Amino acid sequence: MTDLGLAATSNRPLTFDVLLPAPTDGSTRARLGHLRTPHGDVQTPVFMPVGTNATVKALDPDDLVEVGAQIILCNTYHLYLRPGHERVARLGGLHEFMAWKRPILTDSGGYQVVSLGDLRSVDDDGVTFRSHLDGSTHRFTPERSIAVQEALGSDIAVCLDQPVAPHATARREVAEAMVRTHSWAERCLAAHQRPDQALFGIVQGGLEPDLRAESTRVIASMPFDGICIGGLAGDESARQRRETLDVCVPMLADDPRPRYLMGLGSPADLLDAVDAGIDMFDSVLPARVARNGTLWVPGGRLNLRNTRFLDDPRPIQEGCRCRACRTFTRAYLAHLLRADELLFYRLATCHNLTFVLDFMVRIRAALAEGRFADLVREQVALRDNPTADGLSA
Amino acid sequence: MTDLGLAATSNRPLTFDVLLPAPTDGSTRARLGHLRTPHGDVQTPVFMPVGTNATVKALDPDDLVEVGAQIILCNTYHLYLRPGHERVARLGGLHEFMAWKRPILTDSGGYQVVSLGDLRSVDDDGVTFRSHLDGSTHRFTPERSIAVQEALGSDIAVCLDQPVAPHATARREVAEAMVRTHSWAERCLAAHQRPDQALFGIVQGGLEPDLRAESTRVIASMPFDGICIGGLAGDESARQRRETLDVCVPMLADDPRPRYLMGLGSPADLLDAVDAGIDMFDSVLPARVARNGTLWVPGGRLNLRNTRFLDDPRPIQEGCRCRACRTFTRAYLAHLLRADELLFYRLATCHNLTFVLDFMVRIRAALAEGRFADLVREQVALRDNPTADGLSA
Repeated sequence: MTDLGLAATSNRPLTFDVLLPAPTDGSTRARLGHLRTPHGDVQTPVFMPVGTNATVKALDPDDLVEVGAQIILCNTYHLYLRPGHERVARLGGLHEFMAWKRPILTDSGGYQVVSLGDLRSVDDDGVTFRSHLDGSTHRFTPERSIAVQEALGSDIAVCLDQPVAPHATARREVAEAMVRTHSWAERCLAAHQRPDQALFGIVQGGLEPDLRAESTRVIASMPFDGICIGGLAGDESARQRRETLDVCVPMLADDPRPRYLMGLGSPADLLDAVDAGIDMFDSVLPARVARNGTLWVPGGRLNLRNTRFLDDPRPIQEGCRCRACRTFTRAYLAHLLRADELLFYRLATCHNLTFVLDFMVRIRAALAEGRFADLVREQVALRDNPTADGLSA
Repeated sequence: MTDLGLAATSNRPLTFDVLLPAPTDGSTRARLGHLRTPHGDVQTPVFMPVGTNATVKALDPDDLVEVGAQIILCNTYHLYLRPGHERVARLGGLHEFMAWKRPILTDSGGYQVVSLGDLRSVDDDGVTFRSHLDGSTHRFTPERSIAVQEALGSDIAVCLDQPVAPHATARREVAEAMVRTHSWAERCLAAHQRPDQALFGIVQGGLEPDLRAESTRVIASMPFDGICIGGLAGDESARQRRETLDVCVPMLADDPRPRYLMGLGSPADLLDAVDAGIDMFDSVLPARVARNGTLWVPGGRLNLRNTRFLDDPRPIQEGCRCRACRTFTRAYLAHLLRADELLFYRLATCHNLTFVLDFMVRIRAALAEGRFADLVREQVALRDNPTADGLSA
């Protein structure tokens, strides 16, 4: 229990317990945690596969359970436009609609409005945008985003924010977007009513240390169930990202709530962010690169478009438990990719998601056994000396 | 045992037992049979899903077992061009390559050479064609087609034939193609060596009753393991097809070998052809229409592009055991189709293949219980009075 009275309080829809806090010697801020949500428990650090249109592309719920997904993310922007949040609500909510019984986090739609929608205008009240599907005009306000997420019925909703691209944005604009994000966070909190849904706030502030610090202070002062760090996993360098996390996370050292870095997905980046003290992640990356023919293996990746795989009778990754590796050869998968066969996309997605989710299992095991520093060293060595046929990641 | 000495002979790679012959009253020529192949047994009448590129589109082998596939067909033309039959042989043969443990029938490539390849010339020795993939020139002779199928290692190979489109072809051309098909059948028999692979001959002759009779006589006189009826399931009417079968099949009444009508796939057509005495079928139709949004239900079909399904909380077909019906609503499937989500193609294919394979189970059960005529009557009544939301098939 803390002064904010949020964690481990039985009347909250979400509780978070830090099972093993970061060591006091300051060698890492990595920690082992346990989230309880209305649809079940989640071990952290956790990676959330992304189910944009109420489906993780190419997989069904059985596949998701098999790859080891504990919780998935769905996109509010996409589901609002199609099939419509009110339709999803009429059909019993998002879990029922997509037959996924485990937890779901929805984003706010803010990021897609900027990246996919034809953004028409942002003002202090909200954003007006055109649908990327049919050009129709829509408006999201903080209240609207919360209403849409309440209709969808996710376990965790997040506040509408105004993300900005770090490198393309002047400091003044970063500051303006941050202030607006803070104002919208208050409005989201005031609007949010659904008692079986948690609400996370979002820290913004670009790559400006003082703005990040201010944003962390402001967002952490509000009674959210968790703290998102937004505006990263974009065009910043790994070093810039780490420097930003090194501003935000220490300020949350005594905060009992989960920390969620939005949009990060490569194993090396995940490991570094766990080390920086992050508990939750999501990204389309593992599935997207899989569909493009890039399969992750320890220390690197295979590009199945390379002709040498056409005669390779080995599995993608020796010893991998996934549906692709336990049944099929690289040769067969390379053939399916060339023939643009639908089965390729499912099998490749199963492999990369299994790879990243098993990597998170290893991170949690290392934390539980006090071997996290060893795991980091081992991964750095593996990247410096990739397996014989794995390209450097 | 018969004068041809083929059926139930232990040194043949394929045996066929007629468990229940057609009734002597002539009310139907439908019969119940049992095929034994090197990769397992097959109950007939049987429908074979098509795995063009060594994959039944969107399904993996577990899905195929779940929908109830006893045997599948793979396309020699496609596999010859990509990934190449020699590569498949090096990788352990087609079963190993695609991880399908049950029987496989390969076609000869003759049909695809005409329908997909840019056909350059047909002469008495063989056909020269251009690949639909890269325009490269290739030549298939009867000997070459057999060699390719032997390399692939299917349980059942078929002879190279020269199919002709019934309506687009003058009688003289039909007759020439038939004579050539007979000559190629002899050469295929002479070339075929693989002891663990059966070989089927193909009857041609278009819609000309006397040519069909001649072709049936010639092909049945050769020591094939089974008799294909080719050149149908094209642009002929159901009546023309039945009239042709009524020429061919009675001539095979005392022949112990399985009869395979190539390319037929709609439930109504299958029922009529079983009644006409056919044991084996294949078609891309159920899977192809599924991928286009057409789902089969008793007595009709649902077009999931219809907006009324967007709010329909029912399964595609009440009581259906398939992966789509036991988990998802019409509303969700209609959403996936509109969003062009990969999961749609798998679920829709699972449903239509389950539908047609369960229909074959019902046909076999009706035959075993002497109720085949009842089933035919019931199906005709259902088509005349489709279910409330099923369009007439």
